[in-house]
Amino acid sequence: MPTSKSHALYRRAQAVIPKGVYGHYGPAIIDDGPVFFSSAEGARFTDLDGNTYIDWMCAYGPNILGYGHPRVEEAAAKQAADGTTVSLAAPVLVDLAEELVDLVAGADWALFAKNGADATGLAVMVARAATGRRRILKIEGGYHGSAPWMQAPGSTGTVDEDHDLVIEVPWNDADAVRAAIAAHPGDIACFISSPYHHPVFADNEQPADGYWSAVETACRAAGVVVILDDVRSGFRIDLSGSHAAYGFTPDLWCFGKALGNGHPVAALAGSAALKDVAGETFFTGTQFFNAAPMAAALATLRELRATDAAAVATDTGGRLRDALVEVANAHGHELRVTGVAAMPYLRITGEGGTQIGARWVAECVRRGAYLLGYHNNFVCTAHTDDDITRTCDIADAAFVALA
Amino acid sequence: MPTSKSHALYRRAQAVIPKGVYGHYGPAIIDDGPVFFSSAEGARFTDLDGNTYIDWMCAYGPNILGYGHPRVEEAAAKQAADGTTVSLAAPVLVDLAEELVDLVAGADWALFAKNGADATGLAVMVARAATGRRRILKIEGGYHGSAPWMQAPGSTGTVDEDHDLVIEVPWNDADAVRAAIAAHPGDIACFISSPYHHPVFADNEQPADGYWSAVETACRAAGVVVILDDVRSGFRIDLSGSHAAYGFTPDLWCFGKALGNGHPVAALAGSAALKDVAGETFFTGTQFFNAAPMAAALATLRELRATDAAAVATDTGGRLRDALVEVANAHGHELRVTGVAAMPYLRITGEGGTQIGARWVAECVRRGAYLLGYHNNFVCTAHTDDDITRTCDIADAAFVALA
Repeated sequence: MPTSKSHALYRRAQAVIPKGVYGHYGPAIIDDGPVFFSSAEGARFTDLDGNTYIDWMCAYGPNILGYGHPRVEEAAAKQAADGTTVSLAAPVLVDLAEELVDLVAGADWALFAKNGADATGLAVMVARAATGRRRILKIEGGYHGSAPWMQAPGSTGTVDEDHDLVIEVPWNDADAVRAAIAAHPGDIACFISSPYHHPVFADNEQPADGYWSAVETACRAAGVVVILDDVRSGFRIDLSGSHAAYGFTPDLWCFGKALGNGHPVAALAGSAALKDVAGETFFTGTQFFNAAPMAAALATLRELRATDAAAVATDTGGRLRDALVEVANAHGHELRVTGVAAMPYLRITGEGGTQIGARWVAECVRRGAYLLGYHNNFVCTAHTDDDITRTCDIADAAFVALA
Repeated sequence: MPTSKSHALYRRAQAVIPKGVYGHYGPAIIDDGPVFFSSAEGARFTDLDGNTYIDWMCAYGPNILGYGHPRVEEAAAKQAADGTTVSLAAPVLVDLAEELVDLVAGADWALFAKNGADATGLAVMVARAATGRRRILKIEGGYHGSAPWMQAPGSTGTVDEDHDLVIEVPWNDADAVRAAIAAHPGDIACFISSPYHHPVFADNEQPADGYWSAVETACRAAGVVVILDDVRSGFRIDLSGSHAAYGFTPDLWCFGKALGNGHPVAALAGSAALKDVAGETFFTGTQFFNAAPMAAALATLRELRATDAAAVATDTGGRLRDALVEVANAHGHELRVTGVAAMPYLRITGEGGTQIGARWVAECVRRGAYLLGYHNNFVCTAHTDDDITRTCDIADAAFVALA
């Protein structure tokens, strides 16, 4: 399929934007693949050259109900007509906080921002304020945003001081969590983690039996605040928060991505015990009070509930997984699918599997199934049985093209 | 005027949101003043109880063309209908970067984000990466966002390590800048400052003659990156960037607030010399690629140019200032108005002036002129002569009520 318009614009972009397309959108660009979209609807987008794709990336998570969802867009447009960023807060701020607190099991309050990193950054501040401690315990390879302290030591533009108070432990190692707490008595403010491990360029990993309850117990005993980073996984595992599926209760929850179905809003939710200290922590941004994205989020949460969206996406994702594994098998490949069903990470195993996988993904993209091989994909409630069938046909043709 | 609906909702807010209304919106709440808006148009908003105000806060800056500006809203709505947050970038990303780079004198590239703090944080990372140095030089009381390193030492939720690499110098003191550079040879990465000093709870201050050129010379000589935080003042002083009005050229520019006329978008722009290192610095966020706010920003920049908006707001602000000073004089008060004309900071001088000013502002708000006394106000191009006249009538009645 032609992508010359995308690539001509990409060259223009490189003249005025470092790297042309930056951040998490950059690594997905393949030599002859699409770079820019022209329109999007439901579970599909059309690129600048007019090619339409079944989209299994869902904007890296935000798209959970389908692009351009009527009730979400109507709510956002109605609020925008009334005003979005004004010198006072909008009533929808309160409605949204009530809805989120009602939905998330154990949450007593919420504060709103724009990106997941706003929420994870505030979560750490609240934990430090609540405990009077300094150190942050996180998982090796766990991603909590692009702020300096969240990046790997040595990353461009960061300094040692950004990382000095961050302690990393391997995923699924409750002993390591306990050891880190013991090694820094009274100095660990918080443990921050996604509910399961979803790194890039590696199989995603579920928590082992007993892992989360062991971590929760160790943190409680030592007064360490448990922060759930549910930014990526939120509303795709359990609408009550992903902790509900894994049997633990955090003190703080970070939400973003799917919260506004593509409209920019993120949230920190928290336990009653941390409400006062959260109020004492200065946290703001020009755009934190935008009312239109809050109206979109309120409509999104209501629609998620009304449609039991996490269950729907999980079911669709499970069927996609099983069908793709079968297609791969038929071509003599083992396709290993990890992570939760609504966020499948795809890898071809065996010798040369990484290269085969990358080529197979590129062939799928060329044929109209937009997938990534190094990052988990995302399922939304607008994906249909026909999307699965067509994706499998494309996957099959892609394997044929490789052979 | 009645505000009972606002305050009833504020009580509901306090149940589910720490402090009810947080961040920079919180301190503005007065006992019987409005808390929530219901609609906004042009230079006015209506509160939840149906009272309409001439709005001199302009959403703390974003509102520069008037709330609900038709061309801006149309551009945003059109892009939203085509798709806003999708698995690929939108073409408007490139159009917007080209427009901004064309507009800002000396800028060669741009990266987009949501809040001003995203831009100031990235600016520091780029400066550190470019110089291989650690320390940040900033102005005492200068505000660059609510991230921990930007907050004052000792702020709730921050730790000493957040501040250890931040050196503060007084505003308008080029000797102090030189001394700080000399005290840390080869270890100052950047100097970050707004173009003039606009603290809260204090008169705003213009740069002294020769200050900026002295600072620029000192920074150039020592290889210190000059970061202009034009988030608050951008597009209200000079459309080419506020440096153009003060005769210097920064290496990096931070924009936000007015850039999207209320739609959430911020930008870091930079010199050609820093483009490659900016591209090597990892910077991203789920919402950084939202296309609808970029379309709004593009329409805003074009409209700002077409209407010579900074000049219009400056003229309106100058007339407001002169008229209010006269009203105050007639009541025996000296109203001192500082900062640029389009961002007036208002203070009643003399014994008891602070208390008189706070009461006067509250009386103005009660009568339908929305002002703040502890933070600079903002003028937009939708403010009319009639708004000035009515505001002066209200100001007059407010002084009468005080007496």
